[in-house]
Amino acid sequence: MGRGMFITFEGIEGVGKSTNIATFVRHIEQAGHDILCTREPGGTPNAERIREIVSSHSKESMPDIAELMLIFAARSLHVENVIRPAVEQGTWVICDRFTDSSRAYQGGGRGIDLAVIDELAGLVHGDLWPDLTVLLDAPVEIGMARAVERSDPDRFESEQAEFFDRVRAGYLEIARAEPERVTVVDASRDLDAVSADIGRIARELLDNSL
Amino acid sequence: MGRGMFITFEGIEGVGKSTNIATFVRHIEQAGHDILCTREPGGTPNAERIREIVSSHSKESMPDIAELMLIFAARSLHVENVIRPAVEQGTWVICDRFTDSSRAYQGGGRGIDLAVIDELAGLVHGDLWPDLTVLLDAPVEIGMARAVERSDPDRFESEQAEFFDRVRAGYLEIARAEPERVTVVDASRDLDAVSADIGRIARELLDNSL
Repeated sequence: MGRGMFITFEGIEGVGKSTNIATFVRHIEQAGHDILCTREPGGTPNAERIREIVSSHSKESMPDIAELMLIFAARSLHVENVIRPAVEQGTWVICDRFTDSSRAYQGGGRGIDLAVIDELAGLVHGDLWPDLTVLLDAPVEIGMARAVERSDPDRFESEQAEFFDRVRAGYLEIARAEPERVTVVDASRDLDAVSADIGRIARELLDNSL
Repeated sequence: MGRGMFITFEGIEGVGKSTNIATFVRHIEQAGHDILCTREPGGTPNAERIREIVSSHSKESMPDIAELMLIFAARSLHVENVIRPAVEQGTWVICDRFTDSSRAYQGGGRGIDLAVIDELAGLVHGDLWPDLTVLLDAPVEIGMARAVERSDPDRFESEQAEFFDRVRAGYLEIARAEPERVTVVDASRDLDAVSADIGRIARELLDNSL
C-alpha cells in the first residue's frame, strides 16, 4: 500500500469549512480510501489541552509569541502522533486548518514576522506539507455573518473585522505564492456551486493519485 | 524607585535549589527589598496548565520540539505577566529555573541544537536576561540520591543518570561561557558550607546594587 494524501482546508470563520470538508470526504470515501478527519489546533489529547489554553477567555494576557508557540507545540504532537503515521500507512488525512492558519492568523492577523512562523514550521514539520490545500475564500462580512449565526464566538471570533481582513489577505498571499499546492474556492457563492467545485477538486485529486 | 533585580537558580534535581533559594531570599529581605519568588515552568495560571502538560505521564508521546515550545510558551506568559512588570516596579524577582534549564535539559540532555533554543529565547525574552544566575552544581549521583529520597519522581526525574550527566555538562558549559552572569556553587558540600556561599553571594549583589 502506498502513502496516503494529506489535505488541509483553510479559510476565515464562517466560510463553510465543516460542510465542505464533509462533501470532500464523501467523494474520497466513495473511491474506497481510508480517511482520517482531524482538526487544528488539537487532534490529540494533549493538543486538545493546548487548544483549551489558546482559546480560553482567560483574564491572563496571552503574548502573541506564546500563542504561536502553543499552536506549534500542538501541531508537533498532532503531526508525530496522528498525521504522519496515518499518511505513512496509506490513510488519506483531511485536516481542518494547519500551518497556513498560523501564517494567516498569527502572521497576517497579528503581525508576527512570517519568517519566524516558517522557521517554527520547519522545526515542527519541515518534511511534511499538505499535498493539497483548499482555501475557502469569501469577503469577511459574509464569513462573520455566518459565524455570528452559529453563535459560538471564541477568542478568535470576537476579534474585529479589520483583523479578519488581514487574515484573508494573508491566505490569498499564500495562494498566490503556492498555486500548485493551494486551490482557492470562491465560498461567497451559494452552497450548491461551492459543493460542485469541491467535488471537482476531489475527483481531480483522485485521478492524479491513481 | 529603580528597577528590581532578576535572579535565577539553576541545577539538576536534588542539588538543593529550594533550600538555598530560601536562604538567599532571607538575605535580600533583610536588606528591605520587595521580593517575588516564582518558578518555571509555571508561575502564572496558564503557564501552570502548560507545566501540567509537559510533566504529565501521558501515554501520548511528546516530541522534543513540542516540549521545548511548550516551555517557551509558558516562559513568555511568565515573563510578560509576572517577571517583567515586577522587575520594572522595583521588585527583586527570584526564579527557580529559567532559560538556562532549557539549554541544559532540552539542549544538553535531549540534544536539541542550542542555536534553536537561543533563537526561541530571543523571540520570547530577548531583552530580559537574569542579572545573576546561581548554578548549584553537584555530581549526578548526589543529586539523584537526594531526589529519590524526596520520592517525587516526575517525567524528568525518571530519566537516566546518563541524561543528567549531559544536563550537568550543559550547565557547566553555560557557566564557562557567561562567567559574569553565572556563579557556580559547589552543592556537593554540607549544607552549612553551601548556605555560607549563598549568603556571601547575596551580600555581594546587595553591595553592588546600592
